Amino acid sequence: MNAPTDTQQLASDNYAGICAEAFAHLEAANAGHAIAYGDDVWTARAKAAIEDVFETACEVHFVFNGTAANSLALSAICQSYHSVICHELAHIETDECGGPEFFSNGSKLLLGGGANGKLTPAAVEAIFRKRSDIHYPKPQAVSLTQATEVGTVYTPDELAALQATARRLGLHLHMDGARLANALASLGARPKEITWQAGIDVLCFGGTKNGLAVGEAVVFFNTALARDFAYRCKQAGQLASKMRFVSAPWLGLLDNDTWQRNAAHANAMAQRLAKGLEPLPGVHRLFPVEANSVFVSLPEAVITRLHAAGWRFYTFIGAGGVRLMTSWNTREETVDAFIAATRQALGETTPAPAAVANSLDA
Amino acid sequence: MNAPTDTQQLASDNYAGICAEAFAHLEAANAGHAIAYGDDVWTARAKAAIEDVFETACEVHFVFNGTAANSLALSAICQSYHSVICHELAHIETDECGGPEFFSNGSKLLLGGGANGKLTPAAVEAIFRKRSDIHYPKPQAVSLTQATEVGTVYTPDELAALQATARRLGLHLHMDGARLANALASLGARPKEITWQAGIDVLCFGGTKNGLAVGEAVVFFNTALARDFAYRCKQAGQLASKMRFVSAPWLGLLDNDTWQRNAAHANAMAQRLAKGLEPLPGVHRLFPVEANSVFVSLPEAVITRLHAAGWRFYTFIGAGGVRLMTSWNTREETVDAFIAATRQALGETTPAPAAVANSLDA
Amino acid sequence: MNAPTDTQQLASDNYAGICAEAFAHLEAANAGHAIAYGDDVWTARAKAAIEDVFETACEVHFVFNGTAANSLALSAICQSYHSVICHELAHIETDECGGPEFFSNGSKLLLGGGANGKLTPAAVEAIFRKRSDIHYPKPQAVSLTQATEVGTVYTPDELAALQATARRLGLHLHMDGARLANALASLGARPKEITWQAGIDVLCFGGTKNGLAVGEAVVFFNTALARDFAYRCKQAGQLASKMRFVSAPWLGLLDNDTWQRNAAHANAMAQRLAKGLEPLPGVHRLFPVEANSVFVSLPEAVITRLHAAGWRFYTFIGAGGVRLMTSWNTREETVDAFIAATRQALGETTPAPAAVANSLDA
Amino acid sequence: MNAPTDTQQLASDNYAGICAEAFAHLEAANAGHAIAYGDDVWTARAKAAIEDVFETACEVHFVFNGTAANSLALSAICQSYHSVICHELAHIETDECGGPEFFSNGSKLLLGGGANGKLTPAAVEAIFRKRSDIHYPKPQAVSLTQATEVGTVYTPDELAALQATARRLGLHLHMDGARLANALASLGARPKEITWQAGIDVLCFGGTKNGLAVGEAVVFFNTALARDFAYRCKQAGQLASKMRFVSAPWLGLLDNDTWQRNAAHANAMAQRLAKGLEPLPGVHRLFPVEANSVFVSLPEAVITRLHAAGWRFYTFIGAGGVRLMTSWNTREETVDAFIAATRQALGETTPAPAAVANSLDA
Repeated sequence: MNAPTDTQQLASDNYAGICAEAFAHLEAANAGHAIAYGDDVWTARAKAAIEDVFETACEVHFVFNGTAANSLALSAICQSYHSVICHELAHIETDECGGPEFFSNGSKLLLGGGANGKLTPAAVEAIFRKRSDIHYPKPQAVSLTQATEVGTVYTPDELAALQATARRLGLHLHMDGARLANALASLGARPKEITWQAGIDVLCFGGTKNGLAVGEAVVFFNTALARDFAYRCKQAGQLASKMRFVSAPWLGLLDNDTWQRNAAHANAMAQRLAKGLEPLPGVHRLFPVEANSVFVSLPEAVITRLHAAGWRFYTFIGAGGVRLMTSWNTREETVDAFIAATRQALGETTPAPAAVANSLDA
Repeated sequence: MNAPTDTQQLASDNYAGICAEAFAHLEAANAGHAIAYGDDVWTARAKAAIEDVFETACEVHFVFNGTAANSLALSAICQSYHSVICHELAHIETDECGGPEFFSNGSKLLLGGGANGKLTPAAVEAIFRKRSDIHYPKPQAVSLTQATEVGTVYTPDELAALQATARRLGLHLHMDGARLANALASLGARPKEITWQAGIDVLCFGGTKNGLAVGEAVVFFNTALARDFAYRCKQAGQLASKMRFVSAPWLGLLDNDTWQRNAAHANAMAQRLAKGLEPLPGVHRLFPVEANSVFVSLPEAVITRLHAAGWRFYTFIGAGGVRLMTSWNTREETVDAFIAATRQALGETTPAPAAVANSLDA
Repeated sequence: MNAPTDTQQLASDNYAGICAEAFAHLEAANAGHAIAYGDDVWTARAKAAIEDVFETACEVHFVFNGTAANSLALSAICQSYHSVICHELAHIETDECGGPEFFSNGSKLLLGGGANGKLTPAAVEAIFRKRSDIHYPKPQAVSLTQATEVGTVYTPDELAALQATARRLGLHLHMDGARLANALASLGARPKEITWQAGIDVLCFGGTKNGLAVGEAVVFFNTALARDFAYRCKQAGQLASKMRFVSAPWLGLLDNDTWQRNAAHANAMAQRLAKGLEPLPGVHRLFPVEANSVFVSLPEAVITRLHAAGWRFYTFIGAGGVRLMTSWNTREETVDAFIAATRQALGETTPAPAAVANSLDA
Repeated sequence: MNAPTDTQQLASDNYAGICAEAFAHLEAANAGHAIAYGDDVWTARAKAAIEDVFETACEVHFVFNGTAANSLALSAICQSYHSVICHELAHIETDECGGPEFFSNGSKLLLGGGANGKLTPAAVEAIFRKRSDIHYPKPQAVSLTQATEVGTVYTPDELAALQATARRLGLHLHMDGARLANALASLGARPKEITWQAGIDVLCFGGTKNGLAVGEAVVFFNTALARDFAYRCKQAGQLASKMRFVSAPWLGLLDNDTWQRNAAHANAMAQRLAKGLEPLPGVHRLFPVEANSVFVSLPEAVITRLHAAGWRFYTFIGAGGVRLMTSWNTREETVDAFIAATRQALGETTPAPAAVANSLDA
């Protein structure tokens, strides 16, 4: 059976490293001394670059990772007795170990459904209407993940409908954009169209999964919500002393549209993977492939064989579900090797024990 | 249509006042000066009385209400990154406004199902098995409500099965006993049989709903969990300076089995209510009547007419569900008047708008 | 040596019980059923009575004790990265076991000095000016205790000066009024003059020490700060289900100026005590006696003899300091017996071991 | 007047960048894919290297910065109602914006004095003895900073005395070792001698100030305290998805004693600076120079002139105090240029406005 090409895997876009452009900026930023805690020129330039990307003035804070970005952003909106409406598959619910509840000192996540991992206006309204008394946390925000945890993408029309509902109900809008770049590449939209023009108050703009070593940007389009946010970051252990090493790579990503090319490449690899897997007998696609992940179901024995052959990927307990992710540097050979390995494994017949499932977030 | 008898309602056992025996002790405790913060003789006697009730040494702390009792007890078991497995209808989930998450700085409630509001060992195990990675809060406790929020009661056998599962999985057991007295009266069991002998580590023993003005007892059978609990209560604003006025009424309740008679009366009234309502056409019982509440569905028009006639009770949105609760001092006439009013309302035919639903906890 | 008269002590105003007028209302409120969670008529009347006392519209929430009242009020003003400027002897600093830090998820108390337990405008400004960077919690409020922990009282002029400083610096004003009644009786001022007219945004108005069993009122004069405060109370375990038993006694206290008479009596007893003790050789007054406490220093041997004779009171480690408190029902005979006992103890000469000191808050 | 050499400053060791050895490892780690969240080979090797450094088995967790490291370590020891005894100049008190209180949901820092920024056993015991009642947070840990915030170093004898006191009082020992390397270089001690052999339960081992881009290691010598610590890090937003980029540079630092050479160089530059400044008239040394900082007082006019000439450094309000810090890459020319600039400024006489003081932590 085909082993993974070199060390590449399809387990997570977190397995990929730092892209060349980001690395070059990291290196450049290492010349000489620089003022600490973000008062350096790299950080100023990176913030300006983000304003350019979104074609608007906004307040930008760089933090270390996605859990912190989402949790801090939500805690800027919610008091402890408030709640956040999100999809039951949202990363803040399934893979941040209660980070949002911790940072906000107790805010509750209210979970809604919706096909293909996407929250619907009807689900938001139903959750909002369910309770209106002081014995239950008061909804204060809707959190959307773009692209979603199952690799789908909210269309501008879907976002507009959600915005209308949120505004009518007096709810703020948060976007977990850990893979915003992939969503943009998928939609062919301008960044502003699916963020502040869609009513997003605060965006967690992901860099790590798209070619950085570390770091996400919390982008406040509604700057009133950013009041004293620098204090919040500092207290929560999210203010880098040598900030330039977090911010400069962002410049590398944003300059010359590197971030868009990275995302488009990851998406293209997912399409190639889907196209190769779907025709195979025994393979069933679970969600539309709109960003950089492919969800399929495979016979348990096939999963076992692929794991035995050295392929790493996440599975769903008992369901035969498999998540495959591509990244900014996934090679065509890696994709093709996985397809070939799957085809080969499907051709064998030995029964196998159930796979162990776990977090998708690795 | 029959109006409520005097001021009695069937909306909540919190509508009832202080029973005579508790009040007498409140009055007696008001003689002279007493040492503050619980170092008084009334408090010592009340703690001893609770040890007598449960026939074991245990550590007892009196706090002001049920939300505090449950939240503090769970925070003594869980760190912020831990989780508590409970039924989706548990009071800690539905009616404490995120208190458990607040007191523990973020612990998550993991919700399970189970017929008649009762968590099953299978549900506990499924939730426990679902995740075992650090990206999701680690289960640390199972919380059971006895009697449940829908007026049912865990049998000793059911508790034994849950204990076995919890012990096997390394989970602590918490019991929300806001209506433990009603459960005991229903089962005819000794208090120890369904608490520490059933593996309960910490019990929140309710007094308010059974005839006190204010106050619940947090009872640690597993005294190791009570380490520094007095500090926890103090910091959380749950240490009464004039503690005797919280503890002395407990003595009134516990002496001479008043608490058991109170609960038995409430249960009997629920039986009378159920017996009167169930034969009526259009009335459907939703849960077994095992404690002091009756859940039925009624036509929306009937609900509206009953509300218009001055009857207060809680409903479920859109479902026609109605919760009726009896208390230690519910009179037979009140029950009979409600039955009569329902019969009368069922006989009318005017269409009515949908009822507004809300918290059950009032 | 004279033993304490009956059971009366001078250790704490928390040793006294419930005054007759409050008790009568407690009893009256126990007639029939009442709507839970504060939607009852007693609570409405008590809130209106508080508005009458302060001669202004305001938002009132009843909570269980002073730690909760102060902590919740401050958490309505402060985020976790904010700070509160208070006197180093403030109750929130010395006797609430970190309650303010807990309820606000980390707000820091910044301690200032000032003679006689009173914070000065200069101390407030010095603390405010000391730091203005994001590496230290940002001041958001000044908390004043009226009467102070050492039995002194801020004059209207002192409050006006503090208000001017706070407003200039953009700080909110919180008043811990656990003994506001004693301060008012001392000053002969109208309640409004030393609260909202002095710029107080939120007052914790104490009832427990002045004749209630349990309960303080959080009074928002700046109602914008009270946004969603009912949720905050509920989540924090501070919403009484049978609220009438917390609120009705307040009516008993406020009607017919009972609260003012109670406080005036306590103050008068403190004056009698001070007048009796001060002339004794070996007794030194430590603070002006302006409310209901007397702080003196006594020889250690005298302290030991008084304790041995059954008198309870708090001492300061190694300093020979003694706190004596009078209450709404302290009898003249109790005061006179203590004076006599002290005189007797001063006449003896046996050396004695050092007294053990501890919290003043008992 | 001499301007700063190139871009080097003496404001903070956080102004320096990444040392060559760390950078080389960062680059090497960027080859190919790697398992996320710390299950990669770089992280395993870095953990082993730390065990080698301390010559013992221990549990190591890499987090993003010092505030997080200290706050998480202390929250693993303390519940919300506990307290931490530390020096009043400790970084956790003065420069983490309430991080320890936030992560622990309210633990209080109890501040002690001690010459040269060093806590004494007597100060620890006095704070511990001051209160022992439930109205005040219970001491649970002593936190020591090595090297201290004022550039001094605890000797092994001083640590042994503190250990004896802490053990006798039942207190855990935490060490903020943001500049542990500088302390070790100063003492010429083996790492184990001033950490676990000195009774330290948990060490926050700093890398950022000594040549890394980002990252501190939380090192549990008392592994019982590390229970579920991985969950704690994850929830608090301190688990890097691409962990190798945090851990690999640690290897670069630790291999071949780079970290020790870096620290020794910084210390040597501080000695050179002190030696150059101290003879100048008007310059007064404020603390012994034992690590990589020099604290002197200068006339306000001199401070103003140095700032005007482009030199950045921190000052103390009104006191003329100045903190100067050297780093792993401070050049001799930078030091000499500063000395020359100070000499020149001292020779001028124009009066100048007071300098603005602020956090030391930049």
